[in-house]
Amino acid sequence: MAQTTPNHTQTVSGWAAHDSSGKITPFTFKRRENGVDDVSIEVLYCGMCHTDLHHVRNDWGITMYPVVPGHEITGLITKVGSNVTRFKIGDRVGVGCLAASCLDCEFCKDSLENYCDQIQFTYNGIFWDGSITYGGYSKMLVADQRYVVHVPKNLPMDAAAPLLCAGVTVYCPMKDNGMLQSPGKKLGVVGLGGLGHVAVKFGKAFGLHVTVISTSPSKEHEAKERLGADDFIISTDIKQMQAGKRTLDFIIDTVSAKHSLGPLLELLKVNGTLVIVGAPDKPMDLPSFPLIFGKRAVKGSMTGGMRETQEMMDVCGEHNITCDIEVVNPDQINGALDRLARNDVRYRFVIDIAGKSSNL
Amino acid sequence: MAQTTPNHTQTVSGWAAHDSSGKITPFTFKRRENGVDDVSIEVLYCGMCHTDLHHVRNDWGITMYPVVPGHEITGLITKVGSNVTRFKIGDRVGVGCLAASCLDCEFCKDSLENYCDQIQFTYNGIFWDGSITYGGYSKMLVADQRYVVHVPKNLPMDAAAPLLCAGVTVYCPMKDNGMLQSPGKKLGVVGLGGLGHVAVKFGKAFGLHVTVISTSPSKEHEAKERLGADDFIISTDIKQMQAGKRTLDFIIDTVSAKHSLGPLLELLKVNGTLVIVGAPDKPMDLPSFPLIFGKRAVKGSMTGGMRETQEMMDVCGEHNITCDIEVVNPDQINGALDRLARNDVRYRFVIDIAGKSSNL
Repeated sequence: MAQTTPNHTQTVSGWAAHDSSGKITPFTFKRRENGVDDVSIEVLYCGMCHTDLHHVRNDWGITMYPVVPGHEITGLITKVGSNVTRFKIGDRVGVGCLAASCLDCEFCKDSLENYCDQIQFTYNGIFWDGSITYGGYSKMLVADQRYVVHVPKNLPMDAAAPLLCAGVTVYCPMKDNGMLQSPGKKLGVVGLGGLGHVAVKFGKAFGLHVTVISTSPSKEHEAKERLGADDFIISTDIKQMQAGKRTLDFIIDTVSAKHSLGPLLELLKVNGTLVIVGAPDKPMDLPSFPLIFGKRAVKGSMTGGMRETQEMMDVCGEHNITCDIEVVNPDQINGALDRLARNDVRYRFVIDIAGKSSNL
Repeated sequence: MAQTTPNHTQTVSGWAAHDSSGKITPFTFKRRENGVDDVSIEVLYCGMCHTDLHHVRNDWGITMYPVVPGHEITGLITKVGSNVTRFKIGDRVGVGCLAASCLDCEFCKDSLENYCDQIQFTYNGIFWDGSITYGGYSKMLVADQRYVVHVPKNLPMDAAAPLLCAGVTVYCPMKDNGMLQSPGKKLGVVGLGGLGHVAVKFGKAFGLHVTVISTSPSKEHEAKERLGADDFIISTDIKQMQAGKRTLDFIIDTVSAKHSLGPLLELLKVNGTLVIVGAPDKPMDLPSFPLIFGKRAVKGSMTGGMRETQEMMDVCGEHNITCDIEVVNPDQINGALDRLARNDVRYRFVIDIAGKSSNL
């Protein structure tokens, strides 16, 4: 696996981790020339996802250093290849998790590229030309047009950036499970973080009754008053959990730490579905009784395909949905990653790529 | 909770466990008079389900002793109440897991009584009159007509008995997940026991491609040659499991011991579903990656409602499906339970209730 090819002629400034300390430092590297199907993008903002943290620290043992993280990218088109029809210079666009896929399988043909078994990610992936992909913690990106979406004009580019991963990650399972056209149905959102707070916003936009389930009593006011959640259950409070039994149609579980699914399953009605969108690195405990006695389902879901990603962006445009963010400058990335590890962020850090950086 | 009511006037011979040693001995007890909605049944055969073993040994800590197990019951109607229209004296009938439910909830109204939250079981349950229910390890049973089904004429009463639990337990999730009208789809059956071998028979009857997944290489010949399975994967053979990745549409997991779901999930195609029908008493390990990367689902399913149970019986009649059984006499119950605990049965013990019993 090469870091570059002879075709990698464009010099780019970015930020990378070089070992499992996860420390991010400025990093200059090469990107490929803009090919016939490519667009070049001036990166304006890049969200900081938990996945970035796992990668820079090599939690999953798959990191290829140096790693330039970032897959919640917004920016402006600066160049278009000769085959590019969907974009023109100056367009406001976004890039999410996907950099490449086989283009030929049933999933690629149906624009569910995220389930192609040759999927390659925006960073720490291997592009078609054999080079390692570098993500959005950088000033410029070259992307195949297939994996780029338009950002609606009414959405600010900074608060829209995390939609490219956090947004689509919660939108797709809601769509797949019929939550977009089911006003009045009862949605539970486990964990009020980067993903959870967007799930609450989608839920309210789709007319659902939204219950936030959290270990933190301190989040109740925020969940109800500011985000508009209808209800709040403290998951460590046995009485509240008992009272909530068989009340929810659907749960989105965004927690990325190992946890038992039994108490959450009990909150679901018969035939209810719990979707896992976090990625705990250790197996979760799944007791059989709440599963079989309620004919319940635990499903997984991973980001979204490109058609769905554009659709989600357009839905966000219609409903004016963006993420609640804290904007940081590039020289604050390390501090932000440390806070992210402690879940100390409301609700997503977004790097202002052009922001004042004292160490550049 | 009373063992009987003043209305319990009929003396019945049966077999019961009296403590957590699980030892079964002859037991004489009372059953209620035949009410207006009741039928009385001369029990001919009763299957021995793993659940019986869990109950007699109090594995789940919920047993009310003395317990008369048995919920895979076939017999002949000997009496009908004045409101009974569906049955007449002499009819060949079956009784499964359900003795009572609320009759008023959405599930009862839709004949999905098995998901009523006031469900009461054929044994170790509390009937509407407050008495404790006693199951089919007995010579006579009184049952509300709602919870009784007809046994098709072409099915032998002994080999049909386990259909009342094992049969409906695997039939319902196949129906729920669209496997009845999907010839050519790929079904995996984990565990070739009482439930698994019926799942294989249903799968072949519905035109599915059936793969048995087992830890026992010795079962391959039997699975393929006698039961008609198309394929066999030894779950401890990493190469075979690797070769089987993303090949199955649907898996029925009948294993009742704790196990990891990760390797099984990997066998499913994207969007595939694994249904748990066993009831391990400890939580199973559910790793997030094979779940989210394949948008897979783990579902639970518990027996079936009464309409489904009759439908399953009729389907078995059409396709001539019964269970492979070993018939035992009542004085062999303890030995059979011991063998059941070791999974040493092909594939279900059925008690011949009128069989020669040396200790009666």
